[in-house]
Amino acid sequence: MARIFNFSAGPAMLPESVLSQAAEEMLDWQGTGMSVMEMSHRGKAFVEIAARAEQDLRDLLQVPAGYKVLFLQGGATGQFSAIPKNLIGDKRSADYINTGSWSKKAIAEAKQTIGVNVVAQSDNKDLLGIPAESIWQCDPEAAYFHYCANETITGVEFPTIPSVEHAPLVCDMSSTFLSRPIDVSRFGLIYAGAQKNFGPAGLVVVIVREDLLDRAQPDTPSVWHYKAQAEADSMLNTPATYSWYIAGLVFQWLKAQGGLAAVGERNERKAKRLYNAIDSSSFYHNPVEPSARSWMNVPFVLANSDLDKTFLDEAAAAGLHTLKGHRSVGGMRASIYNAMPEAGVEALVDFMQTFEKQHG
Amino acid sequence: MARIFNFSAGPAMLPESVLSQAAEEMLDWQGTGMSVMEMSHRGKAFVEIAARAEQDLRDLLQVPAGYKVLFLQGGATGQFSAIPKNLIGDKRSADYINTGSWSKKAIAEAKQTIGVNVVAQSDNKDLLGIPAESIWQCDPEAAYFHYCANETITGVEFPTIPSVEHAPLVCDMSSTFLSRPIDVSRFGLIYAGAQKNFGPAGLVVVIVREDLLDRAQPDTPSVWHYKAQAEADSMLNTPATYSWYIAGLVFQWLKAQGGLAAVGERNERKAKRLYNAIDSSSFYHNPVEPSARSWMNVPFVLANSDLDKTFLDEAAAAGLHTLKGHRSVGGMRASIYNAMPEAGVEALVDFMQTFEKQHG
Repeated sequence: MARIFNFSAGPAMLPESVLSQAAEEMLDWQGTGMSVMEMSHRGKAFVEIAARAEQDLRDLLQVPAGYKVLFLQGGATGQFSAIPKNLIGDKRSADYINTGSWSKKAIAEAKQTIGVNVVAQSDNKDLLGIPAESIWQCDPEAAYFHYCANETITGVEFPTIPSVEHAPLVCDMSSTFLSRPIDVSRFGLIYAGAQKNFGPAGLVVVIVREDLLDRAQPDTPSVWHYKAQAEADSMLNTPATYSWYIAGLVFQWLKAQGGLAAVGERNERKAKRLYNAIDSSSFYHNPVEPSARSWMNVPFVLANSDLDKTFLDEAAAAGLHTLKGHRSVGGMRASIYNAMPEAGVEALVDFMQTFEKQHG
Repeated sequence: MARIFNFSAGPAMLPESVLSQAAEEMLDWQGTGMSVMEMSHRGKAFVEIAARAEQDLRDLLQVPAGYKVLFLQGGATGQFSAIPKNLIGDKRSADYINTGSWSKKAIAEAKQTIGVNVVAQSDNKDLLGIPAESIWQCDPEAAYFHYCANETITGVEFPTIPSVEHAPLVCDMSSTFLSRPIDVSRFGLIYAGAQKNFGPAGLVVVIVREDLLDRAQPDTPSVWHYKAQAEADSMLNTPATYSWYIAGLVFQWLKAQGGLAAVGERNERKAKRLYNAIDSSSFYHNPVEPSARSWMNVPFVLANSDLDKTFLDEAAAAGLHTLKGHRSVGGMRASIYNAMPEAGVEALVDFMQTFEKQHG
């Protein structure tokens, strides 16, 4: 079968050239006679692969001096637990803003370790958005301030980095990481699961400011102990070597695309094309206020939900897959991460317009 | 370059047919138009891959009713932390036997959560072995009894399952898992990192008796919470999907080899061939008492350690790689997991005999 356009919220599409290279190198990486999967993480070949991936990531994000970049396991959900354990120091609570499902999960897990002060929450069901900073009830004694850059289920995204000065800013960037340039210096810690924008599930990248490395609880699991992992170049235990390698190939691909400025422009074009198609129709609707609309996850409902199944079936027949919305919100969702080509968005828009003519 | 014989202690060799299939399916898994890496873990295709892998594993090990099989992240080192958190219940301490480096790491991590009673330790530097059960100082109130089936650095292995009745038996089987049949009913919990005998690093399998699922501390990280993961079919968070798929291919390969009885016979032949070559020479030496010699990791020293580098260089030139012993013990180590063919062991023995004639 031909490759499809896969609008999955994650795991999600990867660049075809990355997959092709991985397939070609599967039995013999660059003349070593081994698959990357078979390499000792202590061996010269893998150490080179790992170091290059880290450097390429630093280049792409222009990570300033004074930050460690870690390649860990357990996904962003593991970090929900690891972050309070690593950053609690002598504090008793942390600030969290609740903008949706992923914020809620992070809050629930943090509460096992630290007090949580919810500074604000999105609760307008009709017009989803980000609560204005002016109403946030922050705690000046917070160990850190946590937010989720983009809620994948509702498609609600912070348009800018919050103006937080009272505590280190911590961001779950799983679904926007590497989708555009970002000023890393604004953050104490950024974390991102790989399976949306840059690699296979099972890898999480943590970028952490070095002055935050001395605050861990003694019972922090060693695989997530930032200081210990930083000192061990993320190899305190055997890392997810193959996932790290694939992420490295994606970083090379991102550089070849022109870096994050070019990638960000393309992602913005893709999102605008799709939102414009939705807004210019009375058949499709997106309930998020324009300033907070996600570039990565575009949920929409049909005017008549009885047509949902027909829409999904006909879309799949047209090579447009995994468009079903999350069960908690219904309707459709098109996730259009880095590896979704503009042609995929064009094909979706064409399909939507044709479908509306036939059924609207 | 031709494929090499890779004696790495882990990550380690995988069956060539598994790698070939993975390469062929990389861009399009069975007509779906997607790589397994790109599939939603909630989608029909991946759910089938995951379920088949679990069933094949249950078949191979003849897992009895009443056990959950989990596919988690964070490796065995993550489990060093997860096990006491999940199994502590209303107890205060657990029994651990210390037979080497991996036991020590498990003990150190457990101590962050639970009291540790070390029942015995291997300390004879001249003849390494397993302390006799008759001298173990067990605690009748232990939450569980933990042992490491095989210490990869010294090559010391339990010849049989310990006769433990006073507490659930917990085993780190990372380096022997699936290398021979095992009576799962003897265990409360078995765990194994994938990267030695059955897959890529970044995946850990946990087999846990269902009556042990109600003992977790409230602050157990959800990604490692056995009960929560069991209820979610290991998909409480996004699992390491690609690693799970590769493990499934290895399970299929093991079945095609005739199952664990046949694989175990081959592994025993491989180990005996190598130990016989060592024992019949005065040039090579293995310091482990015969009853506790590992089938998986065969360390040996040369009579003259000045020849170590020459041995390694000439071995590599002959296609025999990653034979250097762990820095803590020096000398050589041949790790001969499931995917190391008998031809690899024959080639190593031939090389060792030739090297001895030239340099002995």
